[in-house]
This record gives sequence, structure tokens and C-alpha cells, in this order.
Amino acid sequence: MTDAVRPSSLDPKIAARLKRDATGLIAAIAQQYDTGEVLMLGWMDDEALHRTLTTGRCTYWSRSRREYWVKGETSGNQQWVKSVALDCDGDALLVKVDQIGGACHTGDRTCWDADLLLKEQ
Amino acid sequence: MTDAVRPSSLDPKIAARLKRDATGLIAAIAQQYDTGEVLMLGWMDDEALHRTLTTGRCTYWSRSRREYWVKGETSGNQQWVKSVALDCDGDALLVKVDQIGGACHTGDRTCWDADLLLKEQ
Repeated sequence: MTDAVRPSSLDPKIAARLKRDATGLIAAIAQQYDTGEVLMLGWMDDEALHRTLTTGRCTYWSRSRREYWVKGETSGNQQWVKSVALDCDGDALLVKVDQIGGACHTGDRTCWDADLLLKEQ
Repeated sequence: MTDAVRPSSLDPKIAARLKRDATGLIAAIAQQYDTGEVLMLGWMDDEALHRTLTTGRCTYWSRSRREYWVKGETSGNQQWVKSVALDCDGDALLVKVDQIGGACHTGDRTCWDADLLLKEQ
């Protein structure tokens, strides 16, 4: 198990349950809380999770820019946090949110609207 | 970008769009097609995706056992594939399924039923 790789104010009892990947991250699925739409998959380190739990706004770690990223900070398409759950083996979060506008950087509502590999059977 | 690390019969046009991690995998979110429940997060390589697209049963790559894993093969809690979509940057799949019984290895319906970090606001 990889320890946190950046300083964080995350509750140590939560931090102890996280199973981070080799770069200190866990996957975070954002789901619209009322419709059930799966919006996007992002990545959080300990501090991004801490900020998501305490600020009411989804915060991710950007793997390409190597910085914290408050969803919607520049686009205005904010994600307001409704609930956060950790999965059975500690390596994936399910974050229920209220998404303003599109969650995808293309402007689509979700990141899976454009490329269907297999149509509904 | 990492190439496929195991031989696969996946359609080359689909394979060309995948952005695999350092171990050749992409994340796969399984969602119950009618209720919208997010059930689990698994991992697929090219061949697991090929089998998921062509057999009607969700197939993952088990990172711990290092083998293909047809969901429900031993537990009976099968995942029947309804649709498969690739996300905007090619590194995450959304698989809509019809899940028989519990999706979680603990017996719970989903992998997020047991550990709520933040209750609904």
C-alpha cells in the first residue's frame, strides 16, 4: 500500500482505510444524486478527499497538470457534494453530487455521451 | 500511452482509442441499467473488454490474481451486459448491466453500501 504522497489534513481514521495506487491516488466516481447519471471518473489524493468532504465542492487531483482542481472553478459547471462513500476494498469513492451544467470538458452532460461501443441489448 | 500487454482479439479500431494505465488497464464502472445504482469499479485490459463486448457477460482483469474473471462465475451473481461506453479521454468504461444478486464480494448489493464518509447533505 502506498502512503499519502502530499501533505494532507484528512482525518487519519479515514486515511488509514485508503488503498492508494502507486501514485497515491484513488478513483472517484461522480454520480448525479437524483437522476443516477454517472457523470465522470476523476482521481483524488488524501487532500483532495479532505477538501471534498469539508468544502461542499468536489476537488480532484489533476494527473496531467499535477495540481488540485476544484470542479467547475473555471467552467462554472460546479459539482456540489451530496454524499461520499468508500468502497469495500478502500480504493474507489462514490461521490453523489449536484452537477451544474455539463460534467464533461467537451460540454456534454456526462463523459460517456459520445462513444457507445455496444448499444443497449 | 501504454500498449496492450496481453494478446487480444479486440477490434483494432476500439483498441486504438484506449488510453491504458502503466499496467495496460482501464477502469470499468458497472451500473445497474434500470435503477442507476453504481455497483462496482473493476479493471479491464483489451481482452477483458473484447469478451465483455462479445459474450454478454462482464469480464474483468483481476489485478490480485492476475487472471480473467467472469463476474459471477463462482458466486452465481452474474452481470449481464446491456451497453458499454468509452469516456471522452479513453481511459474509463461505463458498463450498464443487469446484476443478479449482490455485486460486492461481501454480499452487499453494491461496493459502497458499508462505508459512508459523508451523509447526504
